[in-house]
Amino acid sequence: MARLVMKFGGTSVGDLDRIRNVAAHVKREVSAGHEVAVVVSAMAGETNRLVDLARGISAIHDAREYDVIVAAGEQVSVGLLAMALHEIEVPARSWLGWQLPVKTSNVHSSARIQDIDVEVLAQQLSEGRVAVVAGFQGVSDAGRITTLGRGGSDTSAVALAAALKADRCDIYTDVDGVYTTDPRIVENARRLPRVSYEEMLEMASSGAKVLQTRSAELAMVHNVNLQVRSSFDPPDADFPADGLVGTLICSEEEIMEQEVVSGVAYARNEAKVTLRNVPDRPGVAALIFGRLAEAAINVDMIVQNVSSDGQKTDVTFTIASDDLLRTMQVVEVAQDEVGYGSVEQKSGMAKISIVGIGMRSHAGVAQRMFQVLADKGINIDVISTSEIKISVLVDADYTELAVRALHDAFELAAS
Amino acid sequence: MARLVMKFGGTSVGDLDRIRNVAAHVKREVSAGHEVAVVVSAMAGETNRLVDLARGISAIHDAREYDVIVAAGEQVSVGLLAMALHEIEVPARSWLGWQLPVKTSNVHSSARIQDIDVEVLAQQLSEGRVAVVAGFQGVSDAGRITTLGRGGSDTSAVALAAALKADRCDIYTDVDGVYTTDPRIVENARRLPRVSYEEMLEMASSGAKVLQTRSAELAMVHNVNLQVRSSFDPPDADFPADGLVGTLICSEEEIMEQEVVSGVAYARNEAKVTLRNVPDRPGVAALIFGRLAEAAINVDMIVQNVSSDGQKTDVTFTIASDDLLRTMQVVEVAQDEVGYGSVEQKSGMAKISIVGIGMRSHAGVAQRMFQVLADKGINIDVISTSEIKISVLVDADYTELAVRALHDAFELAAS
Repeated sequence: MARLVMKFGGTSVGDLDRIRNVAAHVKREVSAGHEVAVVVSAMAGETNRLVDLARGISAIHDAREYDVIVAAGEQVSVGLLAMALHEIEVPARSWLGWQLPVKTSNVHSSARIQDIDVEVLAQQLSEGRVAVVAGFQGVSDAGRITTLGRGGSDTSAVALAAALKADRCDIYTDVDGVYTTDPRIVENARRLPRVSYEEMLEMASSGAKVLQTRSAELAMVHNVNLQVRSSFDPPDADFPADGLVGTLICSEEEIMEQEVVSGVAYARNEAKVTLRNVPDRPGVAALIFGRLAEAAINVDMIVQNVSSDGQKTDVTFTIASDDLLRTMQVVEVAQDEVGYGSVEQKSGMAKISIVGIGMRSHAGVAQRMFQVLADKGINIDVISTSEIKISVLVDADYTELAVRALHDAFELAAS
Repeated sequence: MARLVMKFGGTSVGDLDRIRNVAAHVKREVSAGHEVAVVVSAMAGETNRLVDLARGISAIHDAREYDVIVAAGEQVSVGLLAMALHEIEVPARSWLGWQLPVKTSNVHSSARIQDIDVEVLAQQLSEGRVAVVAGFQGVSDAGRITTLGRGGSDTSAVALAAALKADRCDIYTDVDGVYTTDPRIVENARRLPRVSYEEMLEMASSGAKVLQTRSAELAMVHNVNLQVRSSFDPPDADFPADGLVGTLICSEEEIMEQEVVSGVAYARNEAKVTLRNVPDRPGVAALIFGRLAEAAINVDMIVQNVSSDGQKTDVTFTIASDDLLRTMQVVEVAQDEVGYGSVEQKSGMAKISIVGIGMRSHAGVAQRMFQVLADKGINIDVISTSEIKISVLVDADYTELAVRALHDAFELAAS
């Protein structure tokens, strides 16, 4: 007997038939004698519908009210899945974020889980009752609904698995694992049987949509075994538990052969903001990015050029296009305080990244990446690197071309 | 300065423009210096969509999960209205049932409000902050979401007005008041400037959709001044406070001239169940209707014929067609216990009622009603009466014919 957390994304609960299919997957595990907590997202399209409603009222809205609105999506799907489980005689009940509660920070729309109270839940699991938990949502100290940001249900699942000390956290999604890159762009992309937490973390933060960044981070910290698999597999198929199905996300030590580059990730809808003639003195960067952090705007890449005269410099940073409007407001309000000269913005950018643990011990990977892109005539706007990742910002029109060229150059295709 | 509760139904918040219109109505009252709490329903069509989802999974579902699903509709509309108020610079925040909390019984899907904690709310109102409260929903002792049944937002509004000791509760709806009958059936139906609580109660329980029965009852008990008016009136129109706009629902003493018959109401989607050969002994009726009450099925009219031999009798009762499936299950399970012979069911019935306080002091009203229907060849299946109401069950095909004939006969038309 094991204790499992099973997570199903929006596509997996996209209509009533898909919800019944999820119930069948859950029943299989329950019938095998396991204790099961299920985390579900909103039905596919539902969160977008709710976001559109909120944006229709106000482009710049109170994030607390936004969270109230979008959290309704998961509320519907947990109720439906609990009912679908009852229909096939699996005892179950739904749990909303505030009911457990899932305590989070009060940074609305991108809250972080601080604690999950699992006492009652664990009791019910031990009595053979399936817990159907709403992903993506929690509750602040002030008793208001919070949400974790898009894709937050993955984080909910991993956090719940950690709190429940679950043996495994299965992420069911619409793809059957983690690939070397997006198979919609590169036809012969290869499924990776195992990926390290670190690589997954970099891939996710570089745009790979299979898993939310924060969930990979949490899994790493709490050493939660994550299995990414497809909810479209028949519920009654025999799944080997050795990681041959889907992709196992695990610690580095469990991966025998480490590749230099494991994958190519991309993120569209990036925007670039450049502040010209920023006074080149200590504390100015902290000031700008502090103001953006207060507004809960995620800044990704940051480049600051050394000024020739030591007086003024240019600062460029990237953000999600969705945040551009709010970012410009924050930046403009802070103009006097920061003392920059002018500001430029550009949306329609894409971030292309290569990720691999083996990079640590291999020189020349960055140089090769830049050469591959140069050979295709792709201009690089901004570069940022980590120990196991290199990212570049390019015009979004070149996304597919860049991804294909890098996938080929680093020989990632299925043989 | 007054303290107001304003309630807006589903049509009034049916799309984003309508929600902005509601915000403008609220702003008018706030600008006039009033403290305002707003109660809103789900956007028109939304509750039906959610109910369809739930039914799509399971015809006979766990009412606790059903409540989780359908309560999501109001959650969305309170968030949107709070945002719309922010947009026009009216400070506001949304409140869900569990947040206040609105404490209810644990009879899911038709829970009754037991208590509303308004301490924090009243504090915020006094600070000039509008409270946008989700109608229709509450929370049980067990901490689970409950709902009050269809139209429950009216009840939420009246209960909130009572708890807040509000000066007035304005029910904004898609009609501009209470009419002598449904103007879609009788073109020259007349708006009633004032209606007594008792009449409103009988009209509502007889099918008049302008207000939920339970809300009229609550208003009567707590002496809440209810004003029914249209949300389609321009928000900046001058509304006289003397009851000339819409319909004021108030105590009998405030109505000068009491009509014999004030209105004709109807309810379609009624079903009839007849138990044949029921043992004619004390306690049998209590047994049958007790079982139905336990299943939270609302029984409306009940007729029991005196048996000729004193041994067996027939019992007929009516319910909403929607409850017919569950009713038949309860009745069949109880067959041995009750000892009836056979059971018959018939849906597609309608209940036609005439209501009027003046009936108390006028004889012959019932006789006249039956004669009017007989003259049109309409057969009466079941009759039930109260001091100020007479209802008959007829084939639903005759609904319009019966309503028009009675409206004419009792001279209710606008002159």
